[in-house]
Amino acid sequence: MSQRTKIKALLQSQQTDIDVTVKGWVRAFRSNRFIALNDGSTNNNIQIVVDFENTDAALLKRITVGAALSVSGKLIASLGKGQTVEVIAQDIEILGDSDPEKYPIQPKKHSLEFLRENAHLRFRTSTFGSIFRLRNSLAFAVHQFFQERGFIYLHTPVITQSDAEGAGEAFHVTNFDLNNVPKTDTGEVDYKQDFFGKSTNLTVSGQLEGELGAMALSDIYTFGPTFRAENSNTTRHLAEFWMIEPEVAFNDLHDNMDLAEDMLKYVIKFALDKNPDDIEFLSQRLQEEEKQKPQNERSDMTLLEKLNFCLDNDFERLTYTEAIEILKESTPNKKKKFQYIVEGWGTDLQSEHERYLVEKHFKKPVILTDYPKEIKSFYMRQNDDGKTVAAMDILFPGIGEIVGGSQREERLDLLEKRMDEMGIPKDELWWYLDTRRFGSCPHAGFGLGFERLVLFVTGMGNIRDVIPFPRFPKNAEF
Amino acid sequence: MSQRTKIKALLQSQQTDIDVTVKGWVRAFRSNRFIALNDGSTNNNIQIVVDFENTDAALLKRITVGAALSVSGKLIASLGKGQTVEVIAQDIEILGDSDPEKYPIQPKKHSLEFLRENAHLRFRTSTFGSIFRLRNSLAFAVHQFFQERGFIYLHTPVITQSDAEGAGEAFHVTNFDLNNVPKTDTGEVDYKQDFFGKSTNLTVSGQLEGELGAMALSDIYTFGPTFRAENSNTTRHLAEFWMIEPEVAFNDLHDNMDLAEDMLKYVIKFALDKNPDDIEFLSQRLQEEEKQKPQNERSDMTLLEKLNFCLDNDFERLTYTEAIEILKESTPNKKKKFQYIVEGWGTDLQSEHERYLVEKHFKKPVILTDYPKEIKSFYMRQNDDGKTVAAMDILFPGIGEIVGGSQREERLDLLEKRMDEMGIPKDELWWYLDTRRFGSCPHAGFGLGFERLVLFVTGMGNIRDVIPFPRFPKNAEF
Repeated sequence: MSQRTKIKALLQSQQTDIDVTVKGWVRAFRSNRFIALNDGSTNNNIQIVVDFENTDAALLKRITVGAALSVSGKLIASLGKGQTVEVIAQDIEILGDSDPEKYPIQPKKHSLEFLRENAHLRFRTSTFGSIFRLRNSLAFAVHQFFQERGFIYLHTPVITQSDAEGAGEAFHVTNFDLNNVPKTDTGEVDYKQDFFGKSTNLTVSGQLEGELGAMALSDIYTFGPTFRAENSNTTRHLAEFWMIEPEVAFNDLHDNMDLAEDMLKYVIKFALDKNPDDIEFLSQRLQEEEKQKPQNERSDMTLLEKLNFCLDNDFERLTYTEAIEILKESTPNKKKKFQYIVEGWGTDLQSEHERYLVEKHFKKPVILTDYPKEIKSFYMRQNDDGKTVAAMDILFPGIGEIVGGSQREERLDLLEKRMDEMGIPKDELWWYLDTRRFGSCPHAGFGLGFERLVLFVTGMGNIRDVIPFPRFPKNAEF
Repeated sequence: MSQRTKIKALLQSQQTDIDVTVKGWVRAFRSNRFIALNDGSTNNNIQIVVDFENTDAALLKRITVGAALSVSGKLIASLGKGQTVEVIAQDIEILGDSDPEKYPIQPKKHSLEFLRENAHLRFRTSTFGSIFRLRNSLAFAVHQFFQERGFIYLHTPVITQSDAEGAGEAFHVTNFDLNNVPKTDTGEVDYKQDFFGKSTNLTVSGQLEGELGAMALSDIYTFGPTFRAENSNTTRHLAEFWMIEPEVAFNDLHDNMDLAEDMLKYVIKFALDKNPDDIEFLSQRLQEEEKQKPQNERSDMTLLEKLNFCLDNDFERLTYTEAIEILKESTPNKKKKFQYIVEGWGTDLQSEHERYLVEKHFKKPVILTDYPKEIKSFYMRQNDDGKTVAAMDILFPGIGEIVGGSQREERLDLLEKRMDEMGIPKDELWWYLDTRRFGSCPHAGFGLGFERLVLFVTGMGNIRDVIPFPRFPKNAEF
């Protein structure tokens, strides 16, 4: 079996008139002569030219959309438009047939809903090939960013004992036969008999465990799956998604903002450099989509412009309090165009407010800081004003919140007081509190929902389309 | 606040007589004069020299093991032995105290069991600092290896509908109140009411979904958590562990072996280049441990020798059938020294047999191929002999099996027949079979248990010590 050359390498080849073997799946076959073959290494197909007059008719009939082929032939400079090289086929082998009557992925535009139901085959479309190559580049860029800075990648646990943030939105993990859950004498679930001897859940965040690592290794990050049993059927939520959570000892809120801004710019630039064809393809796709929308709903910027907009601008940094003032005085608030009118200090911001700040008011990414403590988590560092915490949210065009973070409360007494106020069980988190008992120090971190980032960079509209096999209410197919 | 310099950078500094700020945790404080400070960036501490005669006694008293300090001072060439530079302290700030009466991690040798119970603080020991820096390097090396070869990192789902391999060792995931599981009229669990509308589990492997990606993108790999609800309390098993599963379209078993051998050598070399100090430390630690053992149980090789042994040797490749012949004729088999005597063809190999082949017979890593189909999975490609499948296991010294893989059965009829024989439900795997219906092609892949790799590279003896927060029967603490 001769070694295949990947199509990406062939298309970039400086050499022509060489013998090559290429393998992939048929995207199109026209005039019994031109095969568009793709192997996933690039969004671009290579053109295979078939000498149909000297090719067995039975073989030609089997060159159908979706079929897997091995083609040996000569790579030559192409005379046709749209490609620089093509392969003159000398030998075509059908590795796997694809019955055109039955193959779900036809060479036409399928709805995203249809492709979601065929998520096992949607990788074979141009759109999803580009999405998953970009997702790959972004994931690696995240690793490379942190590795270059000496961070330690920490695998925090997926199965945890407590729903630490107390939101009650964690999935249960159990080894019980659900038809016959063991009970104690008093009729409670007898967790002592369960695999872990206690009630266990799927993690909603690796942050608390990440902090344990940071309080010894200084700079750590997590990158792993997290879960929410939230019954929301939106284009922004998944039951299973991937999170990146850096945590850095000795960092304050300003260091934290710098780190997050640097990271976002680094990974976006990495994707632009590594996958220009994929971004170009998705940018054009988005422009087509936009044309279907009424004029006033269309985005002002193309995908490429949006990405560069994030690279070229310093993110605007202001406090929550300042943002509330701007929103209160804004035209859509005064004219009651917002669905939720901003009355004053203390209200949580909605997506429409975040997008107004980013897209209309500042026209650049925004970092809001120092939120009211009532709307934020127990572990955030309390500011001296007694009202706010050292939180930060990064807001992006089209997405809203893409990063949420804070400086953490490193002072044991203040942390315990806040946990009591918010009803967080201190005994379950003895290990977390231990880091404040022994060698506590200022530290800060943030969480980046990886799919939100992929959504932004691909310009897609539904988060279910940027993860290979999305999990949401009533769906865990594949 | 002046910018801290990481201790790793300070110790490598070419410049001296410069002002620096360093932050970290006290590992030791002797003679009221010398602080050994560590920040996790390296296994080595920096020595802080305190001018105790001109330092407040109350401050000196707070410099205890585990306390977090910020030290500003001058970096100078060291006169003492064991270090090239040290910091003459000008200003010491206690960031967080550590009560020496209560701090669990004392400057003495703790048992690994004790440290496991204090997994939130064990990162602060030299041993675990080294382990988790090495784990980090190995994880990044895996990514870099595959990225350099154009593979796509694919996030396969953690929550899945079916326990595809049918081993019955999957954890259930549910949103039900376990105290009150909804039942149908006929008394069955009413999964329609559960979050996903079906019975769901934690994945035992991402391979089947990985194959879906490979049949479009050609070269993919997964790197994510997998789970086994196996009630085994051994030094080799975890309930939650990380797996790497590459899958490559158009690869056969030989390509697969080449890929796995290249990968293992690449990541081991990466760790040797990146973390020589950590490996040196753990190598010495292992030698100390070995001295406690009776002579005949000691390893012939140091850790460093074992790692180089894997780099310097081509892995020995032979069939299962050939291995059985060797084992049958081996001295420990004839003298009945094996716990499980090898009677003949068809028996599954035990760890003692695998280690005999690697450590005694070939004295190099071994790849066994073409196992009896009865002891392997349904998806492995059936060989023409009708008895064996195109499987491969890679065996390492001290570890036994570190990689398991195969060429996959790409022929629909043979695959379906095997699934029927083994009682694998075809309707649940309609999407897997679809890839054999439409554009099937030869392909191959393997799984590497990441913790097995970390175990090998760190020379540790218990898998619970190479993952930050191990999950095993009756334990999901932290």
